Amino acid sequence: MTKIGFIGLGHMGAPMVRNLLKHQHDVYIYDAVPAAMMALTDAGAIPAQSLKTVAQHAEVFITMLPSGENVAEICTGASGLFKLAQPGSLFIDSSSIAVDKARELHQLAARAGIQMLDAPVSGGTGGAEAGTLTFMVGGGEAHFNRAKPILECMGKKIVHMGAAGNGQATKISNNLILGISMIAVAEGMTLGKKLGIDPKKLFEICSNASAQCWSLNNNCPVPDILPNVPSSHDYQAGFTSAMMLKDLKLSQLAAQTVSAVTPLGAEATALYTLLNNLGHGSLDFSAIIKLIEAK
Amino acid sequence: MTKIGFIGLGHMGAPMVRNLLKHQHDVYIYDAVPAAMMALTDAGAIPAQSLKTVAQHAEVFITMLPSGENVAEICTGASGLFKLAQPGSLFIDSSSIAVDKARELHQLAARAGIQMLDAPVSGGTGGAEAGTLTFMVGGGEAHFNRAKPILECMGKKIVHMGAAGNGQATKISNNLILGISMIAVAEGMTLGKKLGIDPKKLFEICSNASAQCWSLNNNCPVPDILPNVPSSHDYQAGFTSAMMLKDLKLSQLAAQTVSAVTPLGAEATALYTLLNNLGHGSLDFSAIIKLIEAK
Amino acid sequence: MTKIGFIGLGHMGAPMVRNLLKHQHDVYIYDAVPAAMMALTDAGAIPAQSLKTVAQHAEVFITMLPSGENVAEICTGASGLFKLAQPGSLFIDSSSIAVDKARELHQLAARAGIQMLDAPVSGGTGGAEAGTLTFMVGGGEAHFNRAKPILECMGKKIVHMGAAGNGQATKISNNLILGISMIAVAEGMTLGKKLGIDPKKLFEICSNASAQCWSLNNNCPVPDILPNVPSSHDYQAGFTSAMMLKDLKLSQLAAQTVSAVTPLGAEATALYTLLNNLGHGSLDFSAIIKLIEAK
Amino acid sequence: MTKIGFIGLGHMGAPMVRNLLKHQHDVYIYDAVPAAMMALTDAGAIPAQSLKTVAQHAEVFITMLPSGENVAEICTGASGLFKLAQPGSLFIDSSSIAVDKARELHQLAARAGIQMLDAPVSGGTGGAEAGTLTFMVGGGEAHFNRAKPILECMGKKIVHMGAAGNGQATKISNNLILGISMIAVAEGMTLGKKLGIDPKKLFEICSNASAQCWSLNNNCPVPDILPNVPSSHDYQAGFTSAMMLKDLKLSQLAAQTVSAVTPLGAEATALYTLLNNLGHGSLDFSAIIKLIEAK
Repeated sequence: MTKIGFIGLGHMGAPMVRNLLKHQHDVYIYDAVPAAMMALTDAGAIPAQSLKTVAQHAEVFITMLPSGENVAEICTGASGLFKLAQPGSLFIDSSSIAVDKARELHQLAARAGIQMLDAPVSGGTGGAEAGTLTFMVGGGEAHFNRAKPILECMGKKIVHMGAAGNGQATKISNNLILGISMIAVAEGMTLGKKLGIDPKKLFEICSNASAQCWSLNNNCPVPDILPNVPSSHDYQAGFTSAMMLKDLKLSQLAAQTVSAVTPLGAEATALYTLLNNLGHGSLDFSAIIKLIEAK
Repeated sequence: MTKIGFIGLGHMGAPMVRNLLKHQHDVYIYDAVPAAMMALTDAGAIPAQSLKTVAQHAEVFITMLPSGENVAEICTGASGLFKLAQPGSLFIDSSSIAVDKARELHQLAARAGIQMLDAPVSGGTGGAEAGTLTFMVGGGEAHFNRAKPILECMGKKIVHMGAAGNGQATKISNNLILGISMIAVAEGMTLGKKLGIDPKKLFEICSNASAQCWSLNNNCPVPDILPNVPSSHDYQAGFTSAMMLKDLKLSQLAAQTVSAVTPLGAEATALYTLLNNLGHGSLDFSAIIKLIEAK
Repeated sequence: MTKIGFIGLGHMGAPMVRNLLKHQHDVYIYDAVPAAMMALTDAGAIPAQSLKTVAQHAEVFITMLPSGENVAEICTGASGLFKLAQPGSLFIDSSSIAVDKARELHQLAARAGIQMLDAPVSGGTGGAEAGTLTFMVGGGEAHFNRAKPILECMGKKIVHMGAAGNGQATKISNNLILGISMIAVAEGMTLGKKLGIDPKKLFEICSNASAQCWSLNNNCPVPDILPNVPSSHDYQAGFTSAMMLKDLKLSQLAAQTVSAVTPLGAEATALYTLLNNLGHGSLDFSAIIKLIEAK
Repeated sequence: MTKIGFIGLGHMGAPMVRNLLKHQHDVYIYDAVPAAMMALTDAGAIPAQSLKTVAQHAEVFITMLPSGENVAEICTGASGLFKLAQPGSLFIDSSSIAVDKARELHQLAARAGIQMLDAPVSGGTGGAEAGTLTFMVGGGEAHFNRAKPILECMGKKIVHMGAAGNGQATKISNNLILGISMIAVAEGMTLGKKLGIDPKKLFEICSNASAQCWSLNNNCPVPDILPNVPSSHDYQAGFTSAMMLKDLKLSQLAAQTVSAVTPLGAEATALYTLLNNLGHGSLDFSAIIKLIEAK
């Protein structure tokens, strides 16, 4: 049994806590919204009054927060967790944040004697509930080995991607490809349809040929081709356009720092920004086809 | 046994003829290059002095030519096959040509009483030799049924995509997605590498996650990750960058005619034009990573 | 006095005819729409029943038609003007058509003994009415010299750009730069505004600095900065988005034929296609800022 | 006579100091590189041993540093200028830095009782030497009025763009338009040339028509059209590709923060990144035509 402090109890954090509890861990929870804590006490989580309380009890900390600024706020400064926690504590940040920011936090953690890992996830709320998330982990190997059994309570695939920040780097590299390929599918399917092909026939061919990809085969943006995908249910997410935009932005930030050339990634970011500005941020990211179809 | 006229004996046409011969068809062959004809006589093909000779003997015609202009030249005009062939003949164009041009040829064929199909292929020279090509076919259903047993001598998958031109439309829709996704993979893998991730580890994750696609899983542009792909053999094609550029250009032409919006397709076309202008047209299309990596 | 046949009496053609009449030329007019002819008889134009009638009287022909297909239809074939006109006639096509198509028409004209020029214009309906158009002319120098005094009745600037097709090539090269720079201005002004700068102040600086360009200084897409531009009058054209899209498409077609790389031109074409698909084709091309602002 | 502290004595800073000295100001200079200070003592500048020394003497501070990180390092923290300087001092940052970073510095300055302005420049080293820079200034109006006479020693145009950060915002908005329009010119001129037009003729037309812009008329990227531009002198800068890339990156960062859509800006950033990665960062930014021409 490990004493775990868990900060950030949103759509992802809450089910992750439940899975930790199922494995008999003691979980001290904290969220800026008290109601979010209350909802988890039935399941056995222990609500904390403050970060300080969490720090007094926990030896492992997990953060699942909306932005790098939130994580920095929780961790750094005179009343941050890096100061409050016992040296030797393990700190796992599962938020999706900028690679640079993650690496900066690793350095600050090291100075405080904290063992840090960046461990963003894929799999969405479905994966969080089912305990089948993928954790892409960056940081020291010993830290990774310490964290692994805990992460296995919440995920099915726990991968060590190398040094500090590599977890975040992996996630944005994957999602850069994903975002572009979704637009590619939207363009190709729309072109075919406008040229007079029955979309179902086009799907049948392309999904078994070299156009095959996750965005086409598992999340086809044309409605009513696949039954259980967002496009067939008014684009209810799933992985929202706002979340895709967030990751694409992080990819472009990271590309700037290492002078990586991402012409299609840059364009994809512009298109998802446009989709979000048009008010479709809460739809699944396959809704980009609305823009391509100009509907 | 069907008497087949086959025009265009290049890298694709020659092995296709061999497969027709294996199925005991009589194949009358014609090519502007006499040596190309000679190379097939051993296998039993009957070289023709002229298109006129081909037309006198054949009841089914197959063309496999580099461009729509070549096909039009062979088919139309006073001494073209549409004039020379018997009404009721079946005409199968397996060249990759513009959708509009294909539809124009269908109309001209109909006026001459010729049964026309557009039937471009995927599968490359490997598929042509093995007889495992995919034929994407546009045109009347009765014509399709008549052609099917013949196409099955050369291909494994023969799909009727609907009316005239839909075969061509299918191919470019598929390859539009393919070309974009290859660049997406090049961008994502290069970004990850520049951020410090071991490319093999990144491949392992992405190829099993939502970045999964044919370009990554079956033709990874980073060398020495997959053993039997062009990138691991100095980008020996495969499907060349020049061929990808040709198809992307056809996709952009078609998009113009139906006002389809293809922002990433347009950009992909520019990038493959650049790669070709830099002298890499004969390399596999996965060589686009050279541009992204700025090597 | 020259006997001129004028085909195509739309928004541009009609005022051009009026200017020819003012210079005492005999103008035989023809249009598929009889009412378009009637509207010009008061001014002294002579309506023709058919192309044949035009051909019987005129020694110089001017076409001002919506597309290359229209021009080809009028000129080529058994009952086309190239057949009907006297050898030695001068033929000036002022339509905006594809460079390739223009060059093809030059060749057909030469075979028929017709002296051909491509001479597309800039200046819009305002320039057509005021007789201040710019003519960008491609074709033989002798032909150019013969045409010049006639074109000067309708334009202020008549420039010989070189061989066949160069008139069209000039127009699309100019408008490629124009279309891109308008989007650049829309992006820059929108970025500045969203960052909190008063658009009028930003305009004042940029229009006198290195961001200075025709799209900013003469057709600012932000309303109410310049008084007499389309953006300050609900984007009433001007040069419509549909016309800009047409020219951008022609530029992309031409780029394909000579393997020119136009990454921003390709993207600009996609964005204007989107704007047109959204129903804004009849607005001035500065309305692209609506898309960038996501309004 | 004002006592001015000047930090950052590079290609821009050094001539700016000389111009301040010409106007009889006392200038206390500081640079991490001692030789940079020595070079200015002849002209009357007073070298300082440390920032502390500068702070003891000066009432107005000007920074001209390569990055926002450099400015933050000089200003903030326990031994930074914001701490060392007298409350009421005027602080003018003429570096080009991120809008967000500038706004953050304004806030920190205000807390320390320092009067802050962001005042990036345009005009390059030529303008710095001639004292003809343009200063785009953000910050309080009273501060602006205090700074104006000092800035007038170094520049010809001193413009108040509004609140904190607006100086930086103005510069990147302008340069976003500039970077895109340079690529537009490169694309249009290359397209025209490949289509067979004499570049000089094309320039003559376009520079007097709607393609007219600073990048074409004042910095034509095709060599030997304009005599005194970088392209006619092996692309010797001028404003380097590296500097253009820096500003484009800042524009993309800023666009992210306010959800501005910059599809062409994003693409321009990718193209300049590619140009820099290919080793052309020190050439004038008009050298982007090398990439477009694929030379």
